[in-house]
Amino acid sequence: MSTQSVQPPTPTSLSPTFRDNNKGLQTNMETDYVIVFRFATTSKAEAGKKFAELVGKLAKVGLATEVRNGDNHSLLIFVKVASEEHVNAEVYRSRVKDWIHGVRTAAPQKETKKAIEEEPLHEAERYRIIYRMITNPEEEGGAGITPKEGEWKNVESIFALHDHAYNKEWIKRWTKKYILEPQDLDEIRDRLGEKIAFYFAFTQSYFTFLVFPAAFGATAWLLLGRFSPIYAIVSSLWCIAFVEYWKHQEVDLGVRWGVRGVSKIQTKRRHFEHEKEGTDPVTGEKVQIFPATKRLQRQLLQVPFAIAAATVLGSLIATCFGIEIFISEIYNGPLKSVLVFLPTIILTTVMPVLNGILTTFAQRLTKFENYETDDAYNYAMTQKTFVLNFITSYLPVFLTAFVYVPFGSVVVPYLDVFSLTARPFAENEKQLQAPSVGSFVINPDRLRKQIIYFTVTAQIVNLGMEVIVPYLKRQGFTKYKEMQSERASKKGGSSPTPVESDHAEEAPFLTRVRREAELDTYDVNSDLREMVVQFGYLALFSTVWPLTPVSFLANNWLELRADAVKICIEMQRPIPERADTIGPWLDSLSFLSWLGSITTAALVYLFSNDGLGPDGTPKNIRGWALLLTIFFAEHSYLLIRCAVQIGISKIDSPGRQKERRDRFMIRQQYFSESLSQSQNLPQVGKFGEKITRETLEEEARQSSLRSSRLEDRFWARQRNWHETAQIGAGLIDRAAPPEEVKKMQ
Amino acid sequence: MSTQSVQPPTPTSLSPTFRDNNKGLQTNMETDYVIVFRFATTSKAEAGKKFAELVGKLAKVGLATEVRNGDNHSLLIFVKVASEEHVNAEVYRSRVKDWIHGVRTAAPQKETKKAIEEEPLHEAERYRIIYRMITNPEEEGGAGITPKEGEWKNVESIFALHDHAYNKEWIKRWTKKYILEPQDLDEIRDRLGEKIAFYFAFTQSYFTFLVFPAAFGATAWLLLGRFSPIYAIVSSLWCIAFVEYWKHQEVDLGVRWGVRGVSKIQTKRRHFEHEKEGTDPVTGEKVQIFPATKRLQRQLLQVPFAIAAATVLGSLIATCFGIEIFISEIYNGPLKSVLVFLPTIILTTVMPVLNGILTTFAQRLTKFENYETDDAYNYAMTQKTFVLNFITSYLPVFLTAFVYVPFGSVVVPYLDVFSLTARPFAENEKQLQAPSVGSFVINPDRLRKQIIYFTVTAQIVNLGMEVIVPYLKRQGFTKYKEMQSERASKKGGSSPTPVESDHAEEAPFLTRVRREAELDTYDVNSDLREMVVQFGYLALFSTVWPLTPVSFLANNWLELRADAVKICIEMQRPIPERADTIGPWLDSLSFLSWLGSITTAALVYLFSNDGLGPDGTPKNIRGWALLLTIFFAEHSYLLIRCAVQIGISKIDSPGRQKERRDRFMIRQQYFSESLSQSQNLPQVGKFGEKITRETLEEEARQSSLRSSRLEDRFWARQRNWHETAQIGAGLIDRAAPPEEVKKMQ
Repeated sequence: MSTQSVQPPTPTSLSPTFRDNNKGLQTNMETDYVIVFRFATTSKAEAGKKFAELVGKLAKVGLATEVRNGDNHSLLIFVKVASEEHVNAEVYRSRVKDWIHGVRTAAPQKETKKAIEEEPLHEAERYRIIYRMITNPEEEGGAGITPKEGEWKNVESIFALHDHAYNKEWIKRWTKKYILEPQDLDEIRDRLGEKIAFYFAFTQSYFTFLVFPAAFGATAWLLLGRFSPIYAIVSSLWCIAFVEYWKHQEVDLGVRWGVRGVSKIQTKRRHFEHEKEGTDPVTGEKVQIFPATKRLQRQLLQVPFAIAAATVLGSLIATCFGIEIFISEIYNGPLKSVLVFLPTIILTTVMPVLNGILTTFAQRLTKFENYETDDAYNYAMTQKTFVLNFITSYLPVFLTAFVYVPFGSVVVPYLDVFSLTARPFAENEKQLQAPSVGSFVINPDRLRKQIIYFTVTAQIVNLGMEVIVPYLKRQGFTKYKEMQSERASKKGGSSPTPVESDHAEEAPFLTRVRREAELDTYDVNSDLREMVVQFGYLALFSTVWPLTPVSFLANNWLELRADAVKICIEMQRPIPERADTIGPWLDSLSFLSWLGSITTAALVYLFSNDGLGPDGTPKNIRGWALLLTIFFAEHSYLLIRCAVQIGISKIDSPGRQKERRDRFMIRQQYFSESLSQSQNLPQVGKFGEKITRETLEEEARQSSLRSSRLEDRFWARQRNWHETAQIGAGLIDRAAPPEEVKKMQ
Repeated sequence: MSTQSVQPPTPTSLSPTFRDNNKGLQTNMETDYVIVFRFATTSKAEAGKKFAELVGKLAKVGLATEVRNGDNHSLLIFVKVASEEHVNAEVYRSRVKDWIHGVRTAAPQKETKKAIEEEPLHEAERYRIIYRMITNPEEEGGAGITPKEGEWKNVESIFALHDHAYNKEWIKRWTKKYILEPQDLDEIRDRLGEKIAFYFAFTQSYFTFLVFPAAFGATAWLLLGRFSPIYAIVSSLWCIAFVEYWKHQEVDLGVRWGVRGVSKIQTKRRHFEHEKEGTDPVTGEKVQIFPATKRLQRQLLQVPFAIAAATVLGSLIATCFGIEIFISEIYNGPLKSVLVFLPTIILTTVMPVLNGILTTFAQRLTKFENYETDDAYNYAMTQKTFVLNFITSYLPVFLTAFVYVPFGSVVVPYLDVFSLTARPFAENEKQLQAPSVGSFVINPDRLRKQIIYFTVTAQIVNLGMEVIVPYLKRQGFTKYKEMQSERASKKGGSSPTPVESDHAEEAPFLTRVRREAELDTYDVNSDLREMVVQFGYLALFSTVWPLTPVSFLANNWLELRADAVKICIEMQRPIPERADTIGPWLDSLSFLSWLGSITTAALVYLFSNDGLGPDGTPKNIRGWALLLTIFFAEHSYLLIRCAVQIGISKIDSPGRQKERRDRFMIRQQYFSESLSQSQNLPQVGKFGEKITRETLEEEARQSSLRSSRLEDRFWARQRNWHETAQIGAGLIDRAAPPEEVKKMQ
């Protein structure tokens, strides 16, 4: 995999149509969004009516529209902002919401125009605001368009157009630098929004942090060998440092980008189905209620789901594992070199299918759990995805490390159940015979080979799948469509192809828009998942092969750039979303890092000297020693993590400083007001007053002394503080101990 | 210990002076605070000057003063608010600070008078504000009086006067009800401030929660016996539920009392010593800096301190433990029944001394660590206190459970080193002889007896010490003083006793104030510590004796009332402080609960069937089985805790509703404004407009079409949304698939 593949395909290399119409890339016609309206399954009259309603709604919220022909029974509606006032209203609404939730320190100015002049929208924010104008419910001031859903099932997608000139320049710049600077991340944020920027920031931090374990791992590989306790400790410490640093960094980036706290702003899930309606005891508003107990019951289904998933995937993996061991280590007949690939073939064909089925099931389950907010839904879904990924990614290694090695000599003799896989090829029974209990010797290299496969081979394959496969798919699709339209024109097709009806001067632009309409939408979650799974290998198993971080370092340099290319070329321009965290994946990172402290300790104990005892025979594993190692390692881990958390919480950062500065400004303003107020306050019984008002006060005092209230008399005995001081001095004079006593004291 | 002792001593039972002057309790003379000015070791001139300065400063911030004679070379300065404006200024300052830190949702009104009318101060708040007026630095608008410190070392104390009539009524009410209701807690908060209210709220919650384990424990004691795994599991679950519920409850109470977030408002520690001065990068203010690395170095001293404390206390405990076992289980000579108390005597005499020394040392260490804020100081000090308490409270039990029982038969034979303690009394060597290795049989009842001692005897002794000892001390002190003054008057004392110079009508009041000036100040932390240590026994060891919670339930009913009596009678009226949590003790609770999952599992494994194997000989303990039990128990604990946390976080509460209501009010106001704004916005291309401006628009459009900019021409092809809709309909008409295709799809 050379760096060349990261070079963006220049427009000329894209396809014949593009080659001709290069200038289609040069302008976006000032379009903000394109809406694809598909009417293949709707009657003409209904489609027309819906369409009119759609453009009417858009016009109502201040969006201008132009319609053009799309591909295959679809229309392209070009949308641009016509009324800045409508945008301003939405900006104001969004900023008030932010302020209420503590994202902004100060309340937004009510004159939005002035506020926007003071604090102009950056590109991503503008796109986000306009998207909200299109999709927000009408009662919140939006047009209420919900793609693919409900009454708007004709609206296939809403997407923004790529800025190709910028994209080209951007990728060119990136391929030339080794490290992304904070400015680069700011740029991503300004263009693509905070959610994607957080992914890039995370991957960049991870990449930078990897330099240390890569260097240390390479040294350890040369000097310390595998399963070195020193490497294991350093690697665990690194995991703690990285995860905690990233938590710190998230806060900093959140403040830097002005999004700290946005995850608290929850949007209601459209698919939420309420069971009954009630009145909110707080606001008096009507609220839709779904009983929490009922949801809990549904959530409990996650347990059988997780067990079923683990069983299904686990038995597939265990079967393949068993077959592999049988063939590679027991079977001794012909075609062994071919048969050894059998489990890999089974895995690569069956696994994606199973995984797909389980993911669909997880989605259904999450929908069934009926969450009220999008965040809760995503969180629940991410958790399930993590569980599935955990099983498929790490279970094979767990089986090797904690079943095959310690119990290999017990289990392997029973593997002749798998002899039927090789029976057709065996020449005699002896080739299929498992060794008797005790005679089998485990292959200590198996674990290392497996780790190398997962951390090098699989990573490269993955990267290739991400960049090259979609490219080929796109090429094939284009070809297919060209052939189709050729066939149609040969037949003398009834409906004109869209291209024919285009204005000549717009044709290249429209061709390009039709192409972008066909692209996939970018899902930042899948990229994040990939990074988290990768981190898991590092945390859980890198002690097996200390070069793991070196491989990841190289991979991630490419990954960062490949993702940029993917977003620019293979996907629709993503709709900017805000975020102040990488979300539930952060919990997964912490969990993997914690679990790593256990697996690493276990691996180091089990495999020191490759799992062989001092005399070369498989080591005699003592249960209490293994468990004590784990107990000690895990609790040290938790203690150190606690210390690191405290330490890191004390580190200052530009973001935190900015936050404090904002606070300070407001506080100073208020305090200076309150101080100037109190400085003008009168002093009680000021000296000057006493002289002028003396007689008056004396009289009042005397009357007080004669007053019937004990309290009044008590407080009137001394006229003012001077008199108090005087009387006090007298009392001191009388009561003070003689000087000699004082000296003794 | 009967409930009678909780009855408050009525004033008539207090002392002869009080008996005569019962009406001294009836009025506080409208005094807000009393300042004790002591000049025993200062020269007359200096004392007079300082005194004048003191009353001058108080007058400057709007406080009126009266001076009276105190006891033993002291003056009593009575302080009351003279200028409400000054109070208002301080209230405003405090509320702005709260708002900046997010404690208040809305910014305070600048006209404070109106704000205070809208939201009047309750008693505790008023006392707090006035105390701040006296003690705040002058640059923050206070008088800058710092008792016992720096230039104000003559100021011995500042305290408020008890409201005896209320106190009497309050305690009477409490002794008559079984359960404290939220209103009772609100009342404490209104009177004594949030910090003390949080202690009572915590103890009340703990008390209520104890009902369940008490009932279950009693059942388990009857039916399941000791070391029952079922009781262990239920008890661990209860610990999780209680700690997590309390965390939830804290938030609720914080909101209810309007103090949520006050712990974020940090006050600078007066004793903080800076190393250098710098400029804050954020605010540009001068800041005092103490390098964090240097503090870290100093904090590292905690490690040797903890080790030293553990060694010193541990060896004392271990020695006493060894002696006790030697005498009770090996020694067989005369005086055995007396000698057996030897270790208890050593422990009860040496332990408090050692503990005192170590606490002083911990204080010095914490001071040396030089924290910037009071909160950080308190946190560090509390941690050290917890470590000391942990060792003294739990180490004896740990020794019995995890050294004596499993290793008893190995260790005990070596205990004859302690024979010298009994040698003087022994009649022959045989009485001192340790059994040979293997022949010694552990006493399985020892652990249970120890637990009963700690959970019943020690609790009762403790309660007694808290209530009765101070009462006796006070009585003795009064007697001593009476004798002293009698002797002085016999001798014909030189200085008049303060009583002689009192105005007759004030005399009873002043006598009472002098008495209150001598009382101790109340420290809520020591009461909290007591509760946390008690919770520790429950979490760590209650499986040994399931009646533990029953004992605690009874004890805490008394404790709650005894503490109320203590605050009202034996202590000065506490100065109200705010808090939104019980502070670092919460961490201690979590830690103990966690540790409990480990010890309980270990105890259940080690002691099932009293630590005897099926054949009656000491059980053969298998290391791996013990560790596996612990591993399983601990991880189940963590998993369940996580689930409970999620579950509890979803529970709504009145406090949370209040918070949401406040937010909602502000949001609604802003949103209604923004909506009314956007409803007036023009609709793009409204039908009406089109007709009137048609010609004008048409012309503009035509000119646009002729314009040189491609973009302008693109957007001018359709005049408005009606035209877009029309053209769209046309396109649909032409491009729609024939009806038969549609049906197929």
